[in-house]
Amino acid sequence: MSVNAKHEAREETPLRVALLGCGVVGASVARLLVEGRDDFAARIGRPLDVVGVAVRRLGRDRRDTGLPDELFTTDAEELVTRADIVVEVIGGIEPARSLILRAFEHGASVVTANKALLAEDGPRLYEAARAHGVDLYYEASVAGAIPLLRPLRESLAGDDVRTVLGIVNGTTNYVLDKMDSTGQGFAEAVEQAQALGYAEADPTADVEGFDAAAKAAILASLAFHSRVTAPDVYREGISEVTASDVRAAAEMDCVVKLLAICERQQREDGGQGISVRVHPAMIPRSHPLASVREAFNAVFVEAEAAGELMFYGPGAGGDPTASAVLGDVVAVARHRVGGGLGPAESAYADLPVLPMGQTRTRYYLSLDVADRPGVLAQVAEAFSRHGVSIQQVRQTVAADDRSSAELVIVTHRATDEALGATVREIGDLDVVVGVSSVMRVEGE
Amino acid sequence: MSVNAKHEAREETPLRVALLGCGVVGASVARLLVEGRDDFAARIGRPLDVVGVAVRRLGRDRRDTGLPDELFTTDAEELVTRADIVVEVIGGIEPARSLILRAFEHGASVVTANKALLAEDGPRLYEAARAHGVDLYYEASVAGAIPLLRPLRESLAGDDVRTVLGIVNGTTNYVLDKMDSTGQGFAEAVEQAQALGYAEADPTADVEGFDAAAKAAILASLAFHSRVTAPDVYREGISEVTASDVRAAAEMDCVVKLLAICERQQREDGGQGISVRVHPAMIPRSHPLASVREAFNAVFVEAEAAGELMFYGPGAGGDPTASAVLGDVVAVARHRVGGGLGPAESAYADLPVLPMGQTRTRYYLSLDVADRPGVLAQVAEAFSRHGVSIQQVRQTVAADDRSSAELVIVTHRATDEALGATVREIGDLDVVVGVSSVMRVEGE
Repeated sequence: MSVNAKHEAREETPLRVALLGCGVVGASVARLLVEGRDDFAARIGRPLDVVGVAVRRLGRDRRDTGLPDELFTTDAEELVTRADIVVEVIGGIEPARSLILRAFEHGASVVTANKALLAEDGPRLYEAARAHGVDLYYEASVAGAIPLLRPLRESLAGDDVRTVLGIVNGTTNYVLDKMDSTGQGFAEAVEQAQALGYAEADPTADVEGFDAAAKAAILASLAFHSRVTAPDVYREGISEVTASDVRAAAEMDCVVKLLAICERQQREDGGQGISVRVHPAMIPRSHPLASVREAFNAVFVEAEAAGELMFYGPGAGGDPTASAVLGDVVAVARHRVGGGLGPAESAYADLPVLPMGQTRTRYYLSLDVADRPGVLAQVAEAFSRHGVSIQQVRQTVAADDRSSAELVIVTHRATDEALGATVREIGDLDVVVGVSSVMRVEGE
Repeated sequence: MSVNAKHEAREETPLRVALLGCGVVGASVARLLVEGRDDFAARIGRPLDVVGVAVRRLGRDRRDTGLPDELFTTDAEELVTRADIVVEVIGGIEPARSLILRAFEHGASVVTANKALLAEDGPRLYEAARAHGVDLYYEASVAGAIPLLRPLRESLAGDDVRTVLGIVNGTTNYVLDKMDSTGQGFAEAVEQAQALGYAEADPTADVEGFDAAAKAAILASLAFHSRVTAPDVYREGISEVTASDVRAAAEMDCVVKLLAICERQQREDGGQGISVRVHPAMIPRSHPLASVREAFNAVFVEAEAAGELMFYGPGAGGDPTASAVLGDVVAVARHRVGGGLGPAESAYADLPVLPMGQTRTRYYLSLDVADRPGVLAQVAEAFSRHGVSIQQVRQTVAADDRSSAELVIVTHRATDEALGATVREIGDLDVVVGVSSVMRVEGE
C-alpha cells in the first residue's frame, strides 16, 4: 500500500455519530444525515455514520428517520462510549448533562441544542470539553435555525457588543402578534396558538419567559465574555399583557414584544456591568424587530464597530433546528479530520450582572387622572422626586366624561428602581384615578 | 525557568500582524487593534502586534491609526515576510494577489476584504493557502460588517441552500430608495448620493453592478460548493431604471432593488445548475428585503432545512468593515495559537452556471395599447407562442385619452430567453403603442 493509498483509506473511515433523543429534532437530524450522506462526506472529507440513536423506549415506528431498527437503543450510557460525535437533543438537565460529560470522557465531541443545560451549567461543560480536548457546540440552543451564536462567538470576536435585543421565543411572539393584529386578549390568543401548535398544552415555560431567559443567559455570556446563568436573568412573562396595553402601544406607533435583552451598562461606581433581562416591552414600529411576525425569531445586535446588525429566521421546528445542529456537526467533524478545536469559553471580561433595580430602562405609563388644573404638576413633581426625567407627555380628555382625562407619559432612561417607586407613588396620588398601563420601552 | 514559566512565556509571544493598505478600512483596523490590545490578547491567548503598515507613500499624517510613524513602509514585499497574519485592504487585483501569495509562501495567514480578487482568482488563492497550511479568510469582502460568509460556510454547512437574494451594494440601494421615496429620477438621485458620500465621483462600479457581481460570484461559490467567478455572473445595472419604473413598481405594491441572485435551478436536461445574476428587480413590499432602506445591506437565504433566513446590517464604512476583518483576524490567530485551520474551498458539487437565457425568471411589463376589442387576445397570443404563461393582467383606460389604454402584465416563471423574445414581439404588434416598463420580478 503506497503512502497515498493509506492516506485515502484513512480518509474514508467514517466518523461515528451517536444521537441522543429522537423527537421532532432528532428525527430530522437522522433523516438529513441519511439523505445527505454524500454531501456530508464531501464537505467533511470523511463520511458520517449514525452508529446509534438513544430513545426512552423501543418499539415505536421510526421509519421517518431512514434508519434501521437495530440502531435504536435505550442504553444511552453505552452508546456515547462508541462515538466520535454525540448529538444531544433530549433537552433538560438530567440525564443530558451526565451523558454529555461521559461523552467527553470517552473522547467524543458534543453538539447540543440544550439551552436549559447550557444556561445552568455551561462553564462546567466547557471546562470538561477543554480538559478532554474535544468540542462543545450549541448553535441550535438559541433561535433555532438562525446562525447567531457562531456570528457572536466568531464573526464579532474582534468587536465589542453593546446591546443584544432578541425575539427568541416563537410562542410568545405569535401570541403578541395576534393580540396586535386582531385586538384579542392574552387568553384568547394563547388558545389560538395552542390550537395551531404554536403553544404547548402547558405554555408556562414560554409565556412566563423561562425559555427566553435561558437563551438570554447564553447570549449574554457570549456577547460580553462573562459568565451569566439563568438565575442571573431578570424575568417577566407576557401573561399580564392586556389587550389595552397592546392598544396603548399601537397609539404610540409601537408594538409589544417579549424581548431578551443583554446590555452593557455603566454601574453606579463607574465600572461596567451587564443587564440581562427578559420582559415585554414597547418598541417603535420602525424598529427592525417590530416587523418580526408570527412565530419567527430575530436578534438585533449593536456592536461598537459593526453598528446595527439583525439576524432573522425560524426559531423552532424540526428541520430548521436540525439545520443548526448539522452545521455544528460539520464543524466538529472537520476538526476531527483536520485538527483544531472551536473557540473555548471566553469569560475573561468577568463583568458583573446588574440587579434589575440598578438597570437603566425607560417606562411608558398611561394614567386616568382628574381633569383639573394642577394635575400634571403633581404628577411631574412625583417623577422629579425620584430623579426620573420625562421625555414625552400627552393629555387627552375623554369625550364622554369631562371630569377625567388620560395622561400618557414616556420617561427618559432611569434606574428600574426609581421608575418602579415613581409608578407606585403616582398610583397613590389623589388626582390619579387609576394606572391603566405600565410598560418598559426599548429600541430607541 | 520552570515548565510553566516557559509555557507562559511562549503564550505571551505576540502574533505579528502586517497591514497592507491604510485607507478608511485599514486605518480603522489599525486603531481598533491598538485600542483593543488587551481584549484581543484575552480572546486569542496571545497579544497581536502590528509590525508594519504598507502604504503607497510615506509622509501623510497617520495619527488616526494610533501607530508610530516608523511602522509605515512602502516595502510591502518585505513586510509580508515577517508577519504571522497579513491583513490585505488594498483592493484590486495587483499587487494584492502577488502580496497574498507571497505571504502564504512565508507562512502567514491572510485576511482580506478584496471581493474583486476573490471573485477573479479565489480557487488559486485557496489552493495556495492550503499548500502552505495557512488560512485565507474574507468575511469583509461581501456585505461589510454583516456576518454572512461564516454562516454560509459554516452554520449552513449541514444544509442545502436553495436561493440567496442579496442587497449587497449600498450605493445602488441608496439611489433606488431615494427614487422610491421622493419620485426622483436616476441622475438626480445619484447626484444626491454623491453629495452625501454614498456614491463615488465615478459611480460606474456600483451603478452598473460590477461590485455586486463580484460579491454574487463569492456567494454562489460558497452557497453551492461550486466554482463561480465574476465573468460567470450575468449583470445589469440600475442606470436604466426610470422614475416611471419605480412608480410602476409602487402601483404593484413593490419596490425596485438591485439584487445579487444565486439560485439552484433545474437544467433543461434535468440536471442541476445554478443561476448567478445581478439585475434590478421588483420585489413585493411585504418581502423582508423590501424594508432595507438607505445604504444598508441585507441578504436573504433560503435553505432546504433552515427555511428563510435574513442577515441585515451596514454594508460598508471603515469601522463596520474593520469589524468583519478583525473577526477573521481573531479566527486565524486562534488557529495559530491552538492549531487547526478554517474550512478549505468546497467546490465538490461542481454545478454548472446556467446561461442567462436558460435561467427561469418572471417579468413585469407595462404596455401602452390601443383601446379596442381584441388587443388583449393578440398580446396573450404572443406570450403563448413563446410558452410564457401569464400570472396576472390588468387593463386601465387613460382618463384623458379614450383611444389608448395601459396593459400591465406579470408572467409566471419562464426562461429569460423566452421572456425576452416575447417582449420584442409584443413591441412590434400594431396594437401596442409602446412598452413603457419591463422588469424582472423576484421574491415571491
